[in-house]
Amino acid sequence: MNADLLTALSAQRIETPSWGYGNSGTRFKTFAAPGAARDIWEKLDDAAEVHRLTGIAPSVALHIPWDEVDDYGALRDYAQERQLTLGAINPNVFQDDVYKLGSVTNPDERVREQALSHLLDCVEVMKQTGSTDLSLWFADGTNYAGQDDLRRRKRHLRAALGRVHDALPDGARMLVEYKLFEPAFYATDLFDWGAAYAHCLAVGERAQVLVDLGHHAQGVNIEGIVAFLLDEGRLGGFHFNARRYADDDLIVGTANPFELFCIYAELVAAARSEDAATRTTAQQVAYMIDQSHNIEPKVEAMLQSVLNCQEAYAQALLIDHDHLREAQERGDVLGAHRVLTDAFKTDVRPLLREWRGETGRPADPIAAHRQSGYQDRVARERGTVDSGGGYPVKDRVMGT
Amino acid sequence: MNADLLTALSAQRIETPSWGYGNSGTRFKTFAAPGAARDIWEKLDDAAEVHRLTGIAPSVALHIPWDEVDDYGALRDYAQERQLTLGAINPNVFQDDVYKLGSVTNPDERVREQALSHLLDCVEVMKQTGSTDLSLWFADGTNYAGQDDLRRRKRHLRAALGRVHDALPDGARMLVEYKLFEPAFYATDLFDWGAAYAHCLAVGERAQVLVDLGHHAQGVNIEGIVAFLLDEGRLGGFHFNARRYADDDLIVGTANPFELFCIYAELVAAARSEDAATRTTAQQVAYMIDQSHNIEPKVEAMLQSVLNCQEAYAQALLIDHDHLREAQERGDVLGAHRVLTDAFKTDVRPLLREWRGETGRPADPIAAHRQSGYQDRVARERGTVDSGGGYPVKDRVMGT
Amino acid sequence: MNADLLTALSAQRIETPSWGYGNSGTRFKTFAAPGAARDIWEKLDDAAEVHRLTGIAPSVALHIPWDEVDDYGALRDYAQERQLTLGAINPNVFQDDVYKLGSVTNPDERVREQALSHLLDCVEVMKQTGSTDLSLWFADGTNYAGQDDLRRRKRHLRAALGRVHDALPDGARMLVEYKLFEPAFYATDLFDWGAAYAHCLAVGERAQVLVDLGHHAQGVNIEGIVAFLLDEGRLGGFHFNARRYADDDLIVGTANPFELFCIYAELVAAARSEDAATRTTAQQVAYMIDQSHNIEPKVEAMLQSVLNCQEAYAQALLIDHDHLREAQERGDVLGAHRVLTDAFKTDVRPLLREWRGETGRPADPIAAHRQSGYQDRVARERGTVDSGGGYPVKDRVMGT
Amino acid sequence: MNADLLTALSAQRIETPSWGYGNSGTRFKTFAAPGAARDIWEKLDDAAEVHRLTGIAPSVALHIPWDEVDDYGALRDYAQERQLTLGAINPNVFQDDVYKLGSVTNPDERVREQALSHLLDCVEVMKQTGSTDLSLWFADGTNYAGQDDLRRRKRHLRAALGRVHDALPDGARMLVEYKLFEPAFYATDLFDWGAAYAHCLAVGERAQVLVDLGHHAQGVNIEGIVAFLLDEGRLGGFHFNARRYADDDLIVGTANPFELFCIYAELVAAARSEDAATRTTAQQVAYMIDQSHNIEPKVEAMLQSVLNCQEAYAQALLIDHDHLREAQERGDVLGAHRVLTDAFKTDVRPLLREWRGETGRPADPIAAHRQSGYQDRVARERGTVDSGGGYPVKDRVMGT
Repeated sequence: MNADLLTALSAQRIETPSWGYGNSGTRFKTFAAPGAARDIWEKLDDAAEVHRLTGIAPSVALHIPWDEVDDYGALRDYAQERQLTLGAINPNVFQDDVYKLGSVTNPDERVREQALSHLLDCVEVMKQTGSTDLSLWFADGTNYAGQDDLRRRKRHLRAALGRVHDALPDGARMLVEYKLFEPAFYATDLFDWGAAYAHCLAVGERAQVLVDLGHHAQGVNIEGIVAFLLDEGRLGGFHFNARRYADDDLIVGTANPFELFCIYAELVAAARSEDAATRTTAQQVAYMIDQSHNIEPKVEAMLQSVLNCQEAYAQALLIDHDHLREAQERGDVLGAHRVLTDAFKTDVRPLLREWRGETGRPADPIAAHRQSGYQDRVARERGTVDSGGGYPVKDRVMGT
Repeated sequence: MNADLLTALSAQRIETPSWGYGNSGTRFKTFAAPGAARDIWEKLDDAAEVHRLTGIAPSVALHIPWDEVDDYGALRDYAQERQLTLGAINPNVFQDDVYKLGSVTNPDERVREQALSHLLDCVEVMKQTGSTDLSLWFADGTNYAGQDDLRRRKRHLRAALGRVHDALPDGARMLVEYKLFEPAFYATDLFDWGAAYAHCLAVGERAQVLVDLGHHAQGVNIEGIVAFLLDEGRLGGFHFNARRYADDDLIVGTANPFELFCIYAELVAAARSEDAATRTTAQQVAYMIDQSHNIEPKVEAMLQSVLNCQEAYAQALLIDHDHLREAQERGDVLGAHRVLTDAFKTDVRPLLREWRGETGRPADPIAAHRQSGYQDRVARERGTVDSGGGYPVKDRVMGT
Repeated sequence: MNADLLTALSAQRIETPSWGYGNSGTRFKTFAAPGAARDIWEKLDDAAEVHRLTGIAPSVALHIPWDEVDDYGALRDYAQERQLTLGAINPNVFQDDVYKLGSVTNPDERVREQALSHLLDCVEVMKQTGSTDLSLWFADGTNYAGQDDLRRRKRHLRAALGRVHDALPDGARMLVEYKLFEPAFYATDLFDWGAAYAHCLAVGERAQVLVDLGHHAQGVNIEGIVAFLLDEGRLGGFHFNARRYADDDLIVGTANPFELFCIYAELVAAARSEDAATRTTAQQVAYMIDQSHNIEPKVEAMLQSVLNCQEAYAQALLIDHDHLREAQERGDVLGAHRVLTDAFKTDVRPLLREWRGETGRPADPIAAHRQSGYQDRVARERGTVDSGGGYPVKDRVMGT
Repeated sequence: MNADLLTALSAQRIETPSWGYGNSGTRFKTFAAPGAARDIWEKLDDAAEVHRLTGIAPSVALHIPWDEVDDYGALRDYAQERQLTLGAINPNVFQDDVYKLGSVTNPDERVREQALSHLLDCVEVMKQTGSTDLSLWFADGTNYAGQDDLRRRKRHLRAALGRVHDALPDGARMLVEYKLFEPAFYATDLFDWGAAYAHCLAVGERAQVLVDLGHHAQGVNIEGIVAFLLDEGRLGGFHFNARRYADDDLIVGTANPFELFCIYAELVAAARSEDAATRTTAQQVAYMIDQSHNIEPKVEAMLQSVLNCQEAYAQALLIDHDHLREAQERGDVLGAHRVLTDAFKTDVRPLLREWRGETGRPADPIAAHRQSGYQDRVARERGTVDSGGGYPVKDRVMGT
């Protein structure tokens, strides 16, 4: 294998999310999966299995308070023993009853302060975990026209982002996520990349936009947004997943593998840009998975996700940029398109098996996982825990 | 007021759903509402309040097993004392763990039989409640291409529908609901009205299509589907709600009141059709609300829903069909459009206040509700019950 | 009538587009309308008719080169005699054969320069017409992944916008329009408001974003974008029209009147903001119609458009902002929503007839137009001109 | 190569459309392509080039009246000399001025009769060309709510389809196409597959549904529709193209190759079904391209289209159906998905080069085409003909 290719493949990093190892569901039902991780320690165990098999998933994003522990030093140690590091910190300001009408944009100042306080607590957690990324998603928005004042909410959001930005540890940054809708169904306060970008510009240098692949309207060209933000120096990272309809949160690359490839193509091109600033931005992009594994085994789902990213990246690395540019410059529409699709059509699985051989990973990580007995073991040890999601079940609701 | 108008307004019926009075939420969180109904008896109390104030919501749809009781006779009596009847029966084949990969389309025959058995049990419930509509929604579908065989699932679905159809009590019908997506994110087995229609045609005369306003792809013209199904004699009923994005399940008429009006316009026109079969179909349409009140007070939300339907219907009644037809026939595009919009632009609130005066209802049902102290009383009596929805909360997940 | 309301209604301005008076069509066919205006002089005649009947449409947007004349002074005089002024200048950089692969983003520098040169020519036209708004829409984009380099095209666009900005006459501004797609079907260079906003920020104070109601993805909340841009001081103007599917370019307010009302609600609220900068931005917004009248009579279509804007604006003026804010601040979700919808449900047609009486306009402008014989007269005088749109017709293609 | 695979690949057929070889464009502009075919004879020449290079495109769809000739016998001979046959006949009832408000659904009976008469004329053409498929697309619909009566239009459509059906030559069928929107922007009369299916059921056995890949709402799962129609015995054929936004009419397989593969996967599976009726339906499906080549060279675009279909089909042929079924039956969600995607990830280009070698076609048809000098020659011989599409150009409109 080409040495550059080997180096590039070895440098790829995909961060897996702690919450991807636990039970998750739709509003209708959270199906309990045998062996689903029950706490952050078990989630780290699962993440370690994914990294052991793939070699490119060495960090784990945390969700606070789901992953809150008394001693983050112990958590770091626990991770380190498993060749892992603790990654982005994800605050939760959407699950307390006070947040019904919003968190940092709530019409009630006390609620806004409570939310801000939690965000600042998470900044403190970063210092203990050694995390350098604070990943911010707000469920804030409204369900009915007139319910609240959109400009006032925007100003509240801006103020909160500014305060968090200024509290960030040295060397850290905040990644501002946007979403078209859900759980807000009229207007989401941070509704698209443009809104996130404008806020980032306003609050400071260490704020960048986080692109979640499932958070756009139908038809939106995500690689176009990626290219734009790369050129503006404001692309901070990704939440990878796949969707056909809404924020379906399926395994990345399963719904439209060509889209994932096109996104990686922009990133690889930017990393090779003649423009130093663009290169720097591209190199610092955080690649994170954010999915909801509703019906599939959690660890296998995460393996599949990491491998799909690896394949898309490998294909993007094979793009012949010189020929691409030539064809583009002579206005050869289909010729240029074919240079791109030639890379996509390449079956990179043999190449990746070779890379795994050279780096000491199993040739087929999923087969290795299935043969390892890991899933059976955790199912036995952890059991099947009903996580209580979904519509109210009769017994619980009737209660009385 | 014109006597025909009075008669028409007095004949309107909107069925409210038992589950609309209890807590509901998104996958992220179910906010606990003070005083939310905790069981079917309390739900009937709330529905009675809605009917008392509006006069057009005399029936309540039940969801089995959420509303399962030992003695449906007692439930009928309880309803009757409150001027209510028990309406459509809604089976639930999506919330048991066995349904993870589908109910009547599950690859496992035992699961299919379990689902069918529940459906047939619901047919028995109909006999006890006196319900004439069985309302069928299936969450069945797949999340990944290849996960299961689409044609095989279709045949399983057809078989189950046929067996339920043939078990219906005399004079009863089944309403077959479709949905583009959620909770299935690759392919939903009953994915659109065409699929529901084809199944209805195949299984028999007493199967009709149920249109949920939130179950379509973006841009789809719902009144076009309504008109088509009316003309085919296969429109059975509605699940009313509002949406901008996905199946948002907001209060009907809040996102796009003109769309609701256009739907009612088709229904009113069909009810006046020269074609007897079309008239009959239109007259038998079941109007049901199906919403998820996540952040708003339940009873007030339902009142608003019923009133929005009343206003849209009143506007539709005001359409000048003679002038409309004349303009249409002479190809007067904008003239015809204006005949329709003239009715929509009319403020029907004074008319409806007058109708309420004549029928002994409060002029402003929502103001009357707010002044009645009902909400405070139930909040005090019922308390605030955490219904446990949303993403796994730490304490529950960690369990150990 | 309340004096403030009278004043507000009298201050409303809607600019009509010259091209809305001529034949237009879809890619399948341009139907020839009897009496459709054949040149800019006839278009001004039609616009004068619209203004005479409505009183709020005193300016006309020009499209260069469609409306190019030798003597713009004569055109101004001609307009002035009809109580009209010449409005925004709209350059055309999409209809020459050289623009097949883009105009200012074309891979070929000579084409980019040709396009820029046309834009600068239009700046010169502004000086002659007295126009203060340069309205910029670019069809530029790509149809296939890989066809061209997205970041390079972005940089070309930025450069061109900067040169145009710096050439603007004193007191003039440029309005930068965005569009999700069409005629580009893979990636449009100026694909959304965020891209337009970023370019405007970069090129200077006199660049603002233009919102065309038909240029968004499905589900996008346009009033949310409007509120955001108002607060950022970068909302420059509108291209009004209506759509259900794509850029359908129907008569504004016909597809979803509630959406138009919500947009006006944001504008009225901003014009009353406590924040002086927001007020100024709101007051300077340019309201322009941009539609494609394919099957309806042109002048009547434009009248309907102007009247729909007037009704939506009048409804927005009736919003009780004090009660709205109170309800919002106490978290009264449905109460606040009802304050808004109360205004929307109001039938403002009597009010507007009154306003027309006081300002000397016909009570029903469309009836007056129909009775005036204007349409018959122009049909007779101008005839029916085949404008040649649509798919290749046999005779023309076969040519040989 | 496996003999079955060789046989299957050799049996594949893709029909190219005559209109894909001529100039086409968007409503904004039809760019004139050098050498674009000017009449049906030149279109057949181009189609012959595509078939010569690929070996799987032996028939050409005709569009009447664009391709009308005095002597269809001569046309057949001309085709036959080029190893071609004449394929589906596509009537045009959208481009005459009388069709402004519809063709077979027009409120004016004379227009309806004129349209029907053209359809029946096309049936006569079928007899002369030997075509067995009549491909029916109607632009019919409305732009504004109220413009016309949806149920009345539906009945007109049903009547016309019935009359055409009954006039079909022995052994022929009609393929009924549907489309969500464009050129109608409120309600299209034949708006989705369900509507087309219902009409086909009603008019007779020889009516089947035609699926155009670009005619659906966003998110719609096309392979789900394909599977459903296959199982119902009513899938007649395809109009292949690609889209991201609306009916973009790009080269098939360029926007989302995985979707094309999934569609072929359903077709291959149905052709191997245990159910004889399903097999028959699958075997008789007509595969036709329907694209609009706006910026790319026509012949190369068509070659690319045919090759993309070939690659998707070849991948679908590689699916291991035994393992797929096993995984599905044991509920192995991701295992089953991987059986499918394993086929998609396979680079079939070597296989297809081998097949071309065995069947006497150039290994790389596009390279062969580029080297052949064909494009230069036709550009020289045919010149560049302005086909006059797009918005009215000044000179033409002003006329005076």
